[in-house]
Amino acid sequence: MEIRSLFFDVFGTVVDWRGGIAREAKALLAPLGYDLDWFAFADAWRSEYQPGMEEVRAGRIPFSKLDVLHWHNLDRIRPRFGLQGLSEENCRRLNLAWHRLDGWTDSAEGLRRLRTRFWLAPVSNGNISLMVDLARRNDFAWDAILGAEVAGDYKPKPEVYNAACAAFDLPPEQCMMVAAHSSDLAAAAALGLRTAHIARPNEYGPGKGESGPSVPVDFAAADLVDLARQIV
Amino acid sequence: MEIRSLFFDVFGTVVDWRGGIAREAKALLAPLGYDLDWFAFADAWRSEYQPGMEEVRAGRIPFSKLDVLHWHNLDRIRPRFGLQGLSEENCRRLNLAWHRLDGWTDSAEGLRRLRTRFWLAPVSNGNISLMVDLARRNDFAWDAILGAEVAGDYKPKPEVYNAACAAFDLPPEQCMMVAAHSSDLAAAAALGLRTAHIARPNEYGPGKGESGPSVPVDFAAADLVDLARQIV
Repeated sequence: MEIRSLFFDVFGTVVDWRGGIAREAKALLAPLGYDLDWFAFADAWRSEYQPGMEEVRAGRIPFSKLDVLHWHNLDRIRPRFGLQGLSEENCRRLNLAWHRLDGWTDSAEGLRRLRTRFWLAPVSNGNISLMVDLARRNDFAWDAILGAEVAGDYKPKPEVYNAACAAFDLPPEQCMMVAAHSSDLAAAAALGLRTAHIARPNEYGPGKGESGPSVPVDFAAADLVDLARQIV
Repeated sequence: MEIRSLFFDVFGTVVDWRGGIAREAKALLAPLGYDLDWFAFADAWRSEYQPGMEEVRAGRIPFSKLDVLHWHNLDRIRPRFGLQGLSEENCRRLNLAWHRLDGWTDSAEGLRRLRTRFWLAPVSNGNISLMVDLARRNDFAWDAILGAEVAGDYKPKPEVYNAACAAFDLPPEQCMMVAAHSSDLAAAAALGLRTAHIARPNEYGPGKGESGPSVPVDFAAADLVDLARQIV
C-alpha cells in the first residue's frame, strides 16, 4: 500500500524545544533580574511533560490542552528555580515560550519537499493554537493540524494515531509517523502505521538524544531533508 | 477588541459547488451514456444537504462526516435521475466530486491577502479530508482546519462556532465568521462573533444567491479580495 500521508511528532522532531525554552526564558526573566541555568530550567519544565499528560491518559483528569498542562508544570518547578514571586502575567508570558520555538535547520525545507508528494499533519501532543504559532513562525505548511487536541487524548494512546488516520480517510498502512522518539514510533507501528525515525542526537543537550531508532522502523533518516531524499 | 482570526464558510462562499458538481457529474456520467440536466442534478443533491445534517443536529443519528451524508443523499436522489443502476464504485467516484470543486475567481487571492493579517480556518460542515482536497486543488493556505468534524456537530449549532474559537484560544469577539449565507452569520453573531458577508449572487444559478446580507453584519463585501481591501 502506497504511503499517502505523513504524521509528525513536533517537539524534538521538528522544533528544538530545549534551545527555544532556554532562550525565551532568558529573554523574559533576565531583564527582571533572574539568573538561572537556562538549559536546566528547560530540562526541568520538559521533565514534567510526561507526568502531566499521564494524568489525562489515565483518566484522572479530563482532557486539557497542552498549554494548560504546561502552566501547571511551570507552577510545579517554579520553587526549584526561585521563581515563586513571578507575577501571573509573567507566568502567562513565559508559558507562551512553547509557541516561539524554532525548527531545526532542516525542518522547513524538509517539510516543503515532503509536501510535494504527501499530505502532512502534525500529530503532536501540542494544542492547535500552539501548532499554528510554530507553523507561522517557521514557515511550515501543514495540510491540517491533527493530534492530541483533535483526538481528546495524548500520545501514545492509540486514539490519537487512529483519529489522525480517520481524519484523512486513510487506513493506517497508508500513513507514516515521523518522529525522533522510538517510543512514539513503536506505538504507531503497533496500530499498523508505517514509521520513519529522524535522528536528533542533541535534543536533550549535546549527545543526549536518539541518534538512531531502538525499534524496527521503515525508514531511518539523518534529518527531514534526508527523509525527503529517501521517499519523495 | 481586535479581530485576530477569520472563519470561513466554504461551500458557496469560497468554492462554487454548483458549477463543480455539474461539471464533475457530467465528466463521470456522460461517458457511461447518461444525459442529465447536470445543474438540476447538482441542485437536487445540494437540496438534501440540510435535511441530512438535521438528522445529526437533532441527535437522531450519531455524527457522521459530510462525505457519508453526501453518500446517503446521493442514494436518495438517484432514482429521480435514472441512476439506480450506477455501480457502487461509480457512486463512490461521484461522491468525491465534492472534493474537486473550484474556488470562485477571487478566492485564492483574497485568502492569500487576508492571511497576511489574520489566522484563517474553514469552519465548514465539510469534513477534514474534503477541506484538504479543496485547499490543495485551489491553493488555499489555511492555518488549521476547523468546523463540523472537529466539533462533532453541524452548523448552525453553537458548538461548531464555539469549538473553533476555543481551538484558536480566542474569545468570540476576536473571531469573524465570513459567509455568503445570512443564516450562518446570524448564528455566529448570536454567540458574539463578528461577521462578514460575501456576495455570491449566482450561487444557486444566475441571480439565485445572496447579493447582500439580510441580517446586520460588521462587513459586507463584493468578494474575498474586496473583504481584504476593507480589513487588511
